[in-house]
Amino acid sequence: MDKQVFEALSAESLPHRLGGNSALREKIGGDVSHWTVKEIGDGNLNLVFIVTGSKGTAVVKQALPYVRLVGESWPLPLKRSFFEYHALVRQAARAPGMVPEIFFFDETQALIVMEYLTPHVILRRALIDGRELPNIGCDLGLFAARTLFRGSDLSMATRDKKADLALFADNVELCDITENLVFSDPYFEADLNRHTAPQLDPIVMELRSDRDLKVEAQRLKHLFSAKAETLCHGDLHTGSVMVTDAETRVIDPEFAFYGPISFDVGMLLANFWMSYFSQSGQESTTGARDGMRAYLLETIETIWETFRSEFAQLWRTERMGILYQARVFEDRNDPLGAEQALNIVIDDIWREMLGFAGIEIHRRILGLAHNADFETIADPDRRAACESKALKLGRHLAVNRHRIHSLRDIRATAERLQKETLA
Amino acid sequence: MDKQVFEALSAESLPHRLGGNSALREKIGGDVSHWTVKEIGDGNLNLVFIVTGSKGTAVVKQALPYVRLVGESWPLPLKRSFFEYHALVRQAARAPGMVPEIFFFDETQALIVMEYLTPHVILRRALIDGRELPNIGCDLGLFAARTLFRGSDLSMATRDKKADLALFADNVELCDITENLVFSDPYFEADLNRHTAPQLDPIVMELRSDRDLKVEAQRLKHLFSAKAETLCHGDLHTGSVMVTDAETRVIDPEFAFYGPISFDVGMLLANFWMSYFSQSGQESTTGARDGMRAYLLETIETIWETFRSEFAQLWRTERMGILYQARVFEDRNDPLGAEQALNIVIDDIWREMLGFAGIEIHRRILGLAHNADFETIADPDRRAACESKALKLGRHLAVNRHRIHSLRDIRATAERLQKETLA
Repeated sequence: MDKQVFEALSAESLPHRLGGNSALREKIGGDVSHWTVKEIGDGNLNLVFIVTGSKGTAVVKQALPYVRLVGESWPLPLKRSFFEYHALVRQAARAPGMVPEIFFFDETQALIVMEYLTPHVILRRALIDGRELPNIGCDLGLFAARTLFRGSDLSMATRDKKADLALFADNVELCDITENLVFSDPYFEADLNRHTAPQLDPIVMELRSDRDLKVEAQRLKHLFSAKAETLCHGDLHTGSVMVTDAETRVIDPEFAFYGPISFDVGMLLANFWMSYFSQSGQESTTGARDGMRAYLLETIETIWETFRSEFAQLWRTERMGILYQARVFEDRNDPLGAEQALNIVIDDIWREMLGFAGIEIHRRILGLAHNADFETIADPDRRAACESKALKLGRHLAVNRHRIHSLRDIRATAERLQKETLA
Repeated sequence: MDKQVFEALSAESLPHRLGGNSALREKIGGDVSHWTVKEIGDGNLNLVFIVTGSKGTAVVKQALPYVRLVGESWPLPLKRSFFEYHALVRQAARAPGMVPEIFFFDETQALIVMEYLTPHVILRRALIDGRELPNIGCDLGLFAARTLFRGSDLSMATRDKKADLALFADNVELCDITENLVFSDPYFEADLNRHTAPQLDPIVMELRSDRDLKVEAQRLKHLFSAKAETLCHGDLHTGSVMVTDAETRVIDPEFAFYGPISFDVGMLLANFWMSYFSQSGQESTTGARDGMRAYLLETIETIWETFRSEFAQLWRTERMGILYQARVFEDRNDPLGAEQALNIVIDDIWREMLGFAGIEIHRRILGLAHNADFETIADPDRRAACESKALKLGRHLAVNRHRIHSLRDIRATAERLQKETLA
């Protein structure tokens, strides 16, 4: 394979071009004539192939020099594959067993060969189907706490953290997508916006003229751009998670960047709240998804509580970085000082997380990238009714994030919105 | 001059080694036999030479591969000269006329040839002498606002900001000095600490067992390490400012790093508060420096008010970055939304700035690097009386920073501490 010039793979060319790759041959079998290749074209950004040989199956993911969803008119650098690779390596070390195993990486070809997950499905798809996965709340809470704590100055040697900060600072174009599409575009008439119209027109107008909301969205963008606290996944929604009843794996960290600990957590919870409000568009008869709705709200609480308790556990046992050092607290016979600091840190994460969640809900309904949760609801009236409730919760979270103290309170608000007693 | 191997200059070797340097020859005259070289050895970190020729005078500053103050047992990389050079270039563009002009930079020799400032003196020295400089409040407020605003995502193209963030992230060793010596060492029995003993022993014990203070110091360290908001000078105290009655120049930005906007401002004000409390150790008769004390408190207010109004002016006229974009506010007929966001941003800077100021006061009295303001007070009882009041104000600022709303209030507290009605 020519390593000097990037060339996009196709299902036809892949066996020829990767047939000599020893990592792939070892995993799936060396006899290329037995290889079958399937391109699964549901990604917004990249090519993804499933390659099966006589011994097994692997995934080949290749970046394209443009946004696949839009085409060559929107260039996007190949180096996002480099960031995905480096993020996967770090996540594998920080949260063992939670990301796909990497077999091979080729920087010039922007290509990662990795573990094929089977019989895993995309979590978002499972939730649309009304499947109650038993472990995801716990698994995702642990993933978030472990990757976010261990990628920060709470844990890392500061020299390593600063080197990583510099490395990922070059992921400019993917951060730019978030900076614009998440934090700004939904709040004015940007070209790429779209929403269920005319049903949502009134609430869209209302949100775009909501000064407090716009200010909060920009404050959160300020946090996103300036609070270089840890290596975030950067795109941790239910479409970036693959599941079985027994297993949870997190994929697609090409948006990885140094940002706030709260960012991944907020984005994740937002997607569960959206799933919650989308259920009434998916249920065959009214109330058929009551159990699923309760499951989703409980899962949100499990994610946060697991995140919180694992973060606290890591704080007490792995706080080896430059921040909140033991030599100022525990070693000075003041363990309660460290607990006081922990409470403050968690409280900051909580308030930021709520804000990011609110904004994520808005951009997924008003911006460019919509979620299948709502998009699969064919009837626009029914879809808009779901989306409208989610938008209201998003605004509530973003603007009131300094005044909301528990997920129980948010649960009550969500349930009242669902029943339309607050709508 | 051999560009490949670093070699420390001496007053004797400098004419020979730099005699062929065209930038220096042009500025001071090409006839090396007329050059005179004086080493001004008051720096903690570097060699500084004043070189005079037939046409003029220039300064040659060279980093050493160790901390000069301590010796070869404390290595410190030469690349700090690279960061100083890059910071000076940026500051010159962002706050024209406020830093010395650079004539030449040699990365391998860690050497900067720059403008000789005359008849300027170090601001700290002037304040110890009781000199009331008429312009410094305004000049320093403008310097802070312009460099800090224009080095942030409020102003810069995000690609350039991220590239600079990566560049300065490599200034690891100098950040490490701040991280340890400023934010942690003063709050436990670190080896490098020293204080006026036994006079300060009781208050030192009290501060080291003050849980709220230690937690605040660590929160501020967290901000220092994670809030990569703008290019900070990093060491903006009164010893890094050179003055005449008419002119103010800021020097020595080798600690430059991407950090909070509030950091430089807090460090600067802290050094004025220290100057305030040191005056009673400098005055010949009680009350002789009353005018100077009033001048210092007024100057603190001038610095902050100038910073604040210039920052607001830049917010309204140069807010071209990705944050708080006009297209969400002014272009949507909501200029008041931008003002609301400005108030929040300034309020954050205010509260952080007070915290950094409090911690800076503590480390300058309890840590390794002390200030001449206090050190020149020969009588330890008299010195300790001054230092003790400063320490109390520092604690007050750091712990109460979320509850203090004006410099008038701080002025009243400082004046009562000075009169010992609060001591």
